[in-house]
Amino acid sequence: MNIPDIDLPRVVVIGAGFAGLKLARQINTKYHQLVLIDKNNFHTFQPLLYQVASAGLEPDSIAYPIRKTLRKKKNTYFRLASAESIDLDKKTLTTNIGVLAYDKLVIASGAGNNFFGNKTIESNAIPMKSLTEALDLRSKILENFEKALNTQDLQKRNELMNFVIVGAGPTGVELAGALAELRNKILPKDFPDLDLRQMKIHLIEAAPRVLAAMSEKSSEKAYKYLKKLDVHIYTETFVENYADNKVSTSVGKEFDCDTLVWAAGVAGQFPEGIDATKIGRGNRLIVDENLALTEDVFVLGDTALIQSEKYPEGLPMLGSVAMQQGAYLAKQFNRITKKKKRKPFVYTDKGTMATIGRNLAVVETGKFKFQGPFAWLVWMFVHLMLLVGFRNRVVVFVNWTWNYFRYNNGLRLIIRPYKKKKATN
Amino acid sequence: MNIPDIDLPRVVVIGAGFAGLKLARQINTKYHQLVLIDKNNFHTFQPLLYQVASAGLEPDSIAYPIRKTLRKKKNTYFRLASAESIDLDKKTLTTNIGVLAYDKLVIASGAGNNFFGNKTIESNAIPMKSLTEALDLRSKILENFEKALNTQDLQKRNELMNFVIVGAGPTGVELAGALAELRNKILPKDFPDLDLRQMKIHLIEAAPRVLAAMSEKSSEKAYKYLKKLDVHIYTETFVENYADNKVSTSVGKEFDCDTLVWAAGVAGQFPEGIDATKIGRGNRLIVDENLALTEDVFVLGDTALIQSEKYPEGLPMLGSVAMQQGAYLAKQFNRITKKKKRKPFVYTDKGTMATIGRNLAVVETGKFKFQGPFAWLVWMFVHLMLLVGFRNRVVVFVNWTWNYFRYNNGLRLIIRPYKKKKATN
Repeated sequence: MNIPDIDLPRVVVIGAGFAGLKLARQINTKYHQLVLIDKNNFHTFQPLLYQVASAGLEPDSIAYPIRKTLRKKKNTYFRLASAESIDLDKKTLTTNIGVLAYDKLVIASGAGNNFFGNKTIESNAIPMKSLTEALDLRSKILENFEKALNTQDLQKRNELMNFVIVGAGPTGVELAGALAELRNKILPKDFPDLDLRQMKIHLIEAAPRVLAAMSEKSSEKAYKYLKKLDVHIYTETFVENYADNKVSTSVGKEFDCDTLVWAAGVAGQFPEGIDATKIGRGNRLIVDENLALTEDVFVLGDTALIQSEKYPEGLPMLGSVAMQQGAYLAKQFNRITKKKKRKPFVYTDKGTMATIGRNLAVVETGKFKFQGPFAWLVWMFVHLMLLVGFRNRVVVFVNWTWNYFRYNNGLRLIIRPYKKKKATN
Repeated sequence: MNIPDIDLPRVVVIGAGFAGLKLARQINTKYHQLVLIDKNNFHTFQPLLYQVASAGLEPDSIAYPIRKTLRKKKNTYFRLASAESIDLDKKTLTTNIGVLAYDKLVIASGAGNNFFGNKTIESNAIPMKSLTEALDLRSKILENFEKALNTQDLQKRNELMNFVIVGAGPTGVELAGALAELRNKILPKDFPDLDLRQMKIHLIEAAPRVLAAMSEKSSEKAYKYLKKLDVHIYTETFVENYADNKVSTSVGKEFDCDTLVWAAGVAGQFPEGIDATKIGRGNRLIVDENLALTEDVFVLGDTALIQSEKYPEGLPMLGSVAMQQGAYLAKQFNRITKKKKRKPFVYTDKGTMATIGRNLAVVETGKFKFQGPFAWLVWMFVHLMLLVGFRNRVVVFVNWTWNYFRYNNGLRLIIRPYKKKKATN
């Protein structure tokens, strides 16, 4: 790869998500040459992808160009590339655009979708882990209504107007709520000749409750809010298959639907070349308390698995964990340069939150657990502050304020029609 | 098609461009049932497509959802469909989603790209007539620089950094200017490790001057402005072929480039079923002074050819012609209902304008011809006022103001990588 060789240790970072970008911004490039690679030229604010999918925000509101973030850093190189394999002995990373030698390698490539080996579901479901996927989902939802208008076949119309969301973690819950608000307040104005009461939103969860990672109180409230918005919830239910527009489940219940959104499972993703013994639960890479996989290779964010007594399953796959780890590692690198001793990474739990709809959110932070309009305001404020870039904060703030008063979020443009992958069943 | 039969004459409009949308908004639906079809669910403000292509504006700024425009009109139906053929005897229109009977049919399907039969150019060039094409071009431009960074092969790098624009009408001139400003002011900050002086912009025109439809004075000024921005201009030059990244021309000059933008020719587009004798110059449909093709079929905008002494080649293919015709026909329809006599369509020439860059524009309106900063302000004001929707006007205004002071237009996101069509050569 076309990167100049200079007399500084080269730190190669794979992935410009929360972890990789934080590290890239905070590492001192007076002492390091920094090479950041990502398969997109932008950072994606994943927590708001569901608002892109539900046509509430435009993609440029939650994406931020990587080059712009790093503009003022010296000895810094961004390359649009996909990491393919690592050679731990030779200390090189192979990408789709060439081979790169490293002194330190940081794997911050995040998590991808996990279909638990079910190829049929994989080829028929729509996931929502990237901006392209969120836009595909948006196109699909809007196209479905255009098609529903034009069919007299009730079975077909039901399939088009039924939406099944698998997984009631924050992504599934937030998307279900956003779709319900779209149906209740917005689509009836766009489609006066369509009976939107026919649109059903089904949320299916394997665990006994929604938002299973939060407290029972928050789960209960979220359940109540979803019910209020008329979302159908099925807990302790596994989706067994999805083919020919039919969803079959472990409890015998079946659903007819043209759109199944997969928000049920994620798995760590990283280049080839790492020993199987280093791969743990959820396809994450087992690292020590310094986030080190080997002496020269570090792992951050969703890809990293640190097992501890408090978190036997590893730290939660959250943006805040990723950012803390990125900041930690930058500090370690900057410290190492000054010959100081490494300190272990300590996660500060800042809490979790989810929004279900207007005035309906649940927040848990430290000892405080609260729900309702104030939680919703806190959720909005925190998300605004976490967005990268002043422009994006302003755009999202204006959009949200406008929507609050006008009940009319977004433009609902079908710019690229959704193209279904080839089914393998 | 699933449209209720009611006791009102049914007007079917093909295309929600400037002409079709104007007609749809102004026709009195107390006396007509209106069915509007378009292959997109949004209206595109074509004059600003080049700003989407050059990463200055986001697509949602220049697109407006059709359903939102027609929300308050009764007896009005929008369908997302492509018109395929017309049966003039049976008075039916066949679309990809079914057959529709009409009482009056309005063809406002606009113009598409004209490659003058050259299939090789057609498969290798990027046109810029739709939002998808403009987004493809944007992705391609940005990807080219990412690739140029990563090659040591000078020939390859030149191909990636050379841009050839064919056609120096308003679209070609405006795009050339926007690309030049991108190179001069914006990209050097994004790509500090790339020598952007290597980026060449070539504008090729068959006529003896740029903006040939405008006065010689405007042409001269536009030429001077383009030169000032360092655009290379070749007049009286025909592009003969474009294959394997090589452009050959009628004057022997060749260009190596990975990106050729086709802004050289447009041709009317309309469904099958119309007698060849009715098809005139530029593949446009020959209509009478009432824009009528037959008693029940009308043609508007770019698709319509009205030959007159003043305009022997037909009216110019401009948004303002299309809008005047849409408004005229709505009025005629509304008048017919009231049993008044038809008046012929009279085109009021409101002038033409083009912007080349910051403070650099040419305007001709009536007897007034002016250029420079004031022309640029007029150009901006007129375009803002013509945009559909308060939101879009605000968004574009804020973008332009921001860019004026910050020299930093847009986010330059590659959301969907450009996929080259299969070459047929």
